[in-house]
Amino acid sequence: MANITKKVSWSSRGDDSGLTGEGTPLLNGSEIPKPSRQLSGSGSVFRIGRFSTVDLEDDITSEEDPIRGRPKEIPHNEKLLSLKYESLDYDNIENQLFLEEERRMSPMGFRCLEISRWVICGLIGILTGLIACFIDIMVEKLAGYKYQVIKENIEKFTEVGGLSISLILWAVLNCAFVLVGGIMVAFFEPIAAGSGIPQIKCYLNGVKIPRVVRLKTLVVKVIGVICSVAGGLAVGKEGPMIHSGGVVAAGVSQGRSTSLKRDFKMFEYFRRDTEKRDFVSAGAAAGVSAAFGAPVGGVLFSLEEGASFWNQMLTWRIFFASMISTFTLNFFLSIYHGKPGDLSNPGLINFGRFESDSVAYYYYEIPLFMCMGALGGLLGALFNSLNYWLTIFRIRYVHRPCLQVMEALLVAAVTAAVSFTMIYFSNDCQPLGPERNEEYSLQLFCADGEYNSMATAFFNTPERSVRSLFHYQPGSYNPMTLGLFTLTYFFLACWTYGLAVSAGVFIPSLLIGAAWGRLCGILLASFTPTSPIWADPGKYALIGAAAQLGGIVRMTLSLTVIMVEATGNVTYGLPIMLVLMIAKIVGDYFQEGLYDIHIKLQSVPFLHWEAPATSHWLTAREVMSSPVTCFNRIEKVGTIVDVLSNTSTNHNGFPVVVQVLDSDEPAKLCGLILRSQLIVLLKHKVFVELARSRLSQRKLQLKDFRDAYPRFPPIQSIHVSQDERECMMDLTEFMNPTPYTVPQDTSLPRVFKLFRALGLRHLVVADDVNRVIGLVTRKDLARYHLGKHGLEELQLAQT
Amino acid sequence: MANITKKVSWSSRGDDSGLTGEGTPLLNGSEIPKPSRQLSGSGSVFRIGRFSTVDLEDDITSEEDPIRGRPKEIPHNEKLLSLKYESLDYDNIENQLFLEEERRMSPMGFRCLEISRWVICGLIGILTGLIACFIDIMVEKLAGYKYQVIKENIEKFTEVGGLSISLILWAVLNCAFVLVGGIMVAFFEPIAAGSGIPQIKCYLNGVKIPRVVRLKTLVVKVIGVICSVAGGLAVGKEGPMIHSGGVVAAGVSQGRSTSLKRDFKMFEYFRRDTEKRDFVSAGAAAGVSAAFGAPVGGVLFSLEEGASFWNQMLTWRIFFASMISTFTLNFFLSIYHGKPGDLSNPGLINFGRFESDSVAYYYYEIPLFMCMGALGGLLGALFNSLNYWLTIFRIRYVHRPCLQVMEALLVAAVTAAVSFTMIYFSNDCQPLGPERNEEYSLQLFCADGEYNSMATAFFNTPERSVRSLFHYQPGSYNPMTLGLFTLTYFFLACWTYGLAVSAGVFIPSLLIGAAWGRLCGILLASFTPTSPIWADPGKYALIGAAAQLGGIVRMTLSLTVIMVEATGNVTYGLPIMLVLMIAKIVGDYFQEGLYDIHIKLQSVPFLHWEAPATSHWLTAREVMSSPVTCFNRIEKVGTIVDVLSNTSTNHNGFPVVVQVLDSDEPAKLCGLILRSQLIVLLKHKVFVELARSRLSQRKLQLKDFRDAYPRFPPIQSIHVSQDERECMMDLTEFMNPTPYTVPQDTSLPRVFKLFRALGLRHLVVADDVNRVIGLVTRKDLARYHLGKHGLEELQLAQT
Repeated sequence: MANITKKVSWSSRGDDSGLTGEGTPLLNGSEIPKPSRQLSGSGSVFRIGRFSTVDLEDDITSEEDPIRGRPKEIPHNEKLLSLKYESLDYDNIENQLFLEEERRMSPMGFRCLEISRWVICGLIGILTGLIACFIDIMVEKLAGYKYQVIKENIEKFTEVGGLSISLILWAVLNCAFVLVGGIMVAFFEPIAAGSGIPQIKCYLNGVKIPRVVRLKTLVVKVIGVICSVAGGLAVGKEGPMIHSGGVVAAGVSQGRSTSLKRDFKMFEYFRRDTEKRDFVSAGAAAGVSAAFGAPVGGVLFSLEEGASFWNQMLTWRIFFASMISTFTLNFFLSIYHGKPGDLSNPGLINFGRFESDSVAYYYYEIPLFMCMGALGGLLGALFNSLNYWLTIFRIRYVHRPCLQVMEALLVAAVTAAVSFTMIYFSNDCQPLGPERNEEYSLQLFCADGEYNSMATAFFNTPERSVRSLFHYQPGSYNPMTLGLFTLTYFFLACWTYGLAVSAGVFIPSLLIGAAWGRLCGILLASFTPTSPIWADPGKYALIGAAAQLGGIVRMTLSLTVIMVEATGNVTYGLPIMLVLMIAKIVGDYFQEGLYDIHIKLQSVPFLHWEAPATSHWLTAREVMSSPVTCFNRIEKVGTIVDVLSNTSTNHNGFPVVVQVLDSDEPAKLCGLILRSQLIVLLKHKVFVELARSRLSQRKLQLKDFRDAYPRFPPIQSIHVSQDERECMMDLTEFMNPTPYTVPQDTSLPRVFKLFRALGLRHLVVADDVNRVIGLVTRKDLARYHLGKHGLEELQLAQT
Repeated sequence: MANITKKVSWSSRGDDSGLTGEGTPLLNGSEIPKPSRQLSGSGSVFRIGRFSTVDLEDDITSEEDPIRGRPKEIPHNEKLLSLKYESLDYDNIENQLFLEEERRMSPMGFRCLEISRWVICGLIGILTGLIACFIDIMVEKLAGYKYQVIKENIEKFTEVGGLSISLILWAVLNCAFVLVGGIMVAFFEPIAAGSGIPQIKCYLNGVKIPRVVRLKTLVVKVIGVICSVAGGLAVGKEGPMIHSGGVVAAGVSQGRSTSLKRDFKMFEYFRRDTEKRDFVSAGAAAGVSAAFGAPVGGVLFSLEEGASFWNQMLTWRIFFASMISTFTLNFFLSIYHGKPGDLSNPGLINFGRFESDSVAYYYYEIPLFMCMGALGGLLGALFNSLNYWLTIFRIRYVHRPCLQVMEALLVAAVTAAVSFTMIYFSNDCQPLGPERNEEYSLQLFCADGEYNSMATAFFNTPERSVRSLFHYQPGSYNPMTLGLFTLTYFFLACWTYGLAVSAGVFIPSLLIGAAWGRLCGILLASFTPTSPIWADPGKYALIGAAAQLGGIVRMTLSLTVIMVEATGNVTYGLPIMLVLMIAKIVGDYFQEGLYDIHIKLQSVPFLHWEAPATSHWLTAREVMSSPVTCFNRIEKVGTIVDVLSNTSTNHNGFPVVVQVLDSDEPAKLCGLILRSQLIVLLKHKVFVELARSRLSQRKLQLKDFRDAYPRFPPIQSIHVSQDERECMMDLTEFMNPTPYTVPQDTSLPRVFKLFRALGLRHLVVADDVNRVIGLVTRKDLARYHLGKHGLEELQLAQT
């Protein structure tokens, strides 16, 4: 059983293969009994541990596994729940050590802690802003260079013929960039693939996603996103910023880096999941803020995705980090752009200035907007469904890194080819206005003083294309161009999302939406040529962009604010809200949001906001795992080592019970202890006998636990001699003496609410004399979901 | 003991007099033992009931009490915690009846419920928008009429002399309006005084404030606010909108009105505190949204003030209500203003259009903004301190309704007199621009074609004054005018807040801030006459307004968004945030926020976000109230009636225990039942014997509890005969069988977190064999706060 895979499969990296069988998830086919559990009352007598693997030691064993017996096809479906993911310990472990420390601390000490929190948030903001700045400048430089070379080449060959050489040059340049990015991601850090938003969503939800907040991930992500955007893929750099912000936050707040093997001895107090998760939410907000120039949107994003319990002070710190992040980005970009001090153009993506006069809207336009919202929802659902099937296909067949890189190269080449073809066959020539300073405007076969309109959409970074769709004069695009562009870009973007490259889906979505939105605007104007109201198609481009993005990602409140902040004009708040809401309602009817699909396909035990509505007939008794392995308050070392070493019962939390000697009274719950704590205790050999004999022995302190956090060694690496096995361990001081408990008749929604609101990892189910009869963990709750045919139960799998 | 006062004292209404003694709160001086409790471990052996009065029957006994022995002076301080306020039952009572109902419900049933929730939110939005519209139009009409009359009068008398007649006319008109508003508030519904924001804050925090969400309160509030704004007081109509929104929500969601004695038989499912509180938060958001045209700001306000547990679906519904509210208001106002369909000018207060070009800011201005923020914090703290002393004075000496009305009249007259004097002696004449269409511009002693600049500030509704300070050309005001205006208006506004009139403090704060902000801008421009950057003082007026408002109310995130949405321009997001944050930090150093001061002065058991930092040394054992009155699962009716009738132990929640017969085992906790439930049971005579004898008797249903909600009859009104007293009552079906419990060693922060996150009312403290040893209620937690000298404990008082 030592070959339990410790890898996360998020990026469908090869080594998560071979572990699942369709419908009947098995570990390498045979060794583990079918872990799907019946709902038959108290009939669920599995030991919890069977369903959980340890990810604690993922670092130790994460060297490349030999490729043994890797099958060509990996069966997979989304009705599974992976046992690989553990919860964060968001609930404070208020053991004696912790309480002693807290009680020793003076009010001044608490004030200092609070100030350090603010300082960390400031640092998070600054670093996130700098990273965003770096990405932006690098993309601009590289893409600028690329387009310059191709443009010159095209201009040369347009006259002499032989444009196929230009096409090849374009494709080769794209592939070169994507190759670098793809190799980085596929071979070095698969978790850095994609936008990172699903991963951050899960982390904020309380799921421990291995390696998601590592420095290495950050480096790969940053280089990867630069390569994929410069490589001309239909991707954006905004999603990865959110992930980057989260990594920065996790790193800064811990005051050390495992990747660099450096410990700065700072912020040691914050080395626990509670604090870390709070900081990561600040980092994610800072990322959104840097990406879209939307500090409030960032805060709302973090809350919408991550909040268990809204805390005012935390919200303010998140807000502060967001603010600093936008400010830093703007400050440095304004210097880079030669306008130092102009802070009014924030964010990586800027929608440009919508002047209020030109874009006022009237109430009779609202039904139109709503129709566009519905269209956005439909197209979004289509996009998500296509991407869903593609992802299933990828999980099954494209799981080797080299295949993944090859697919990325293929997409890059196809993107170049399609773009080239579209531009080549387009005959939409527009006069080159005097104020139009498009850097890469292509003349191609147009007359002198004209440029190819299709090229402004394809021969450009997606950000610039969005801006031109929003703001170019009426008449800059003809409807045919927009229609073709929408169609091709839709499929390109859909194909691109999920590749083994770092890339976001925000900008492609906006671009698709802006294109068909502008098309709608033009069509409306052509129906009513006399009315001046429909004159500006830019307004419709904005609405279309919102509708399409809303239809794909299905965020509402935070996305509204992000869009409003990126537009710089609140006039459009109301229509954007309406459109996003309609898009969500329509889209949800057909298919889930893109991020939720990817979370589900990774079988993450994601907890939604509420238990399924019809789950009142389930009680804690049916939901819980039992029997539970408990420890006595004073327990034999050998027993503990045996339980921890038993890979078939990889429990992570153990109720501690007290048995009154010489009495037939049942053992009563008196605390809860975590695997990680026991590991530290064993490592430091905190045995009762040793404490008696060697009086000088240093008392174990909270610091020892913090030093070991977050990567506690595996039990196998701790040597316990035969003599030591006979010793006793006193858990009193270390266990959490006041774990939350529920009676066994508690309904699932009630259990769910307690669990979710407090961010628990283990919830003890006790009977009326306080005996432990079960344990509820995240997987026990995430299993239930409301399907088309009532309440469904997901199967647990080792995938 | 029957004379326990059931009235809320929020508006310092007379009849809360005579109940407190400074420091040693006594009920009418003698009858109750000193209820201040020691912290000495388990020494707190008071019965909980001593500290709680029933407010259930407030309606029955709320007829005007005879004025007996009302003292001239009411001693009061803010270190008290009133026992008069009860918690809302935010935690669902999942008893058998409830679970049966939920289990019977089909998925379609849940979907219908969800749709009704959306419908209700839509209705809340529409009604709130209509009320806002009504207030706005009425104020505009009445104020327009008033100023027209005075203006004509002044113009007449300026030429012939005898302006004192104009002054008297002005004062009389003001007083007439204020008299109506004051009488309404002081005599009919004292809870309608002030802005209502502190009350709504408390309600959202989970405190039951009697009569705060009544239709009567709404009517008085609406008429009151129209009168006070039209009466020329230094008040705004925005705060009351928030309260109005809350009342609308509470009314609509219940589908009936007690004031009107009408039951529409709708939305019966929502007749419980959980749902009601959620709807009230939507209503408050809709109110903010209508007041400031800030739907996102409204949502954030509700969350910042009210959220226990952020729920995505709830947030969206709140958002929807806000959106509809702004939309409704805009739609009708646009028709009223003759520009139907123009929706781009939202909200009751509109800051006018800030064009991006004229108001761009540079990074070297940020330190200036921060200084202004600090100044705002200082002035805000000064404002709050003055108002604090004034409020203490009012509570002590101005507690009779007639005195309160007289004070309001005095303020109205003084406001008119001061305004008149300021305008009269001002010599700041400005040319009447061609595009300037100020309706009430006063020429007074200025030359023809000029107007008196001071009059634009004083002789106007505050909303218009704010807008003119933001947008008038540089040079429209001279510094002297602004300085004098700031000074006088500061004291007028401070005096006005807390009067027995319905009035908000937002607009006066903005006005004060805008005035000194503009002054700052003018001074800066005069120092550097060459630089064009400082040219626009309107920018500084905006920053000053934000600083002053932030300094007074101390909101950050929601206020930033509100300001940004009201400005219609996100460019100013960053400086506004910074300014609000600095203002809060500086202000908090000296004094709390205005709303918190008023909450504290009313001794409301308000739960903050977290337990005091240094409270880790307290455990549930020290915090809880004990011994607890418990009931057996099958209890004698006589016992129940006696316990409920005992006014000295007005418990509201009773743990239910089960005693194993013929056994020395201790009684074990098996549920929790509320006074309100017992009352219903007694009223319907749900006795075991009766059930046996009359088999046909209808089984008690959830509907019976819902019909009685929220004003359950007092125990005195239920007649129980001597025979019936001997009957037994079976509580099994009605009690909540799974109350949350904590062990007695749980630390205060942990108890606090559980209590706050789940919005509990009673938290049972149990020992290791599940025996009840205490009960934690809101007051037990709200008592502790971090003072200047470490942890302090508030005294419990019957006030």
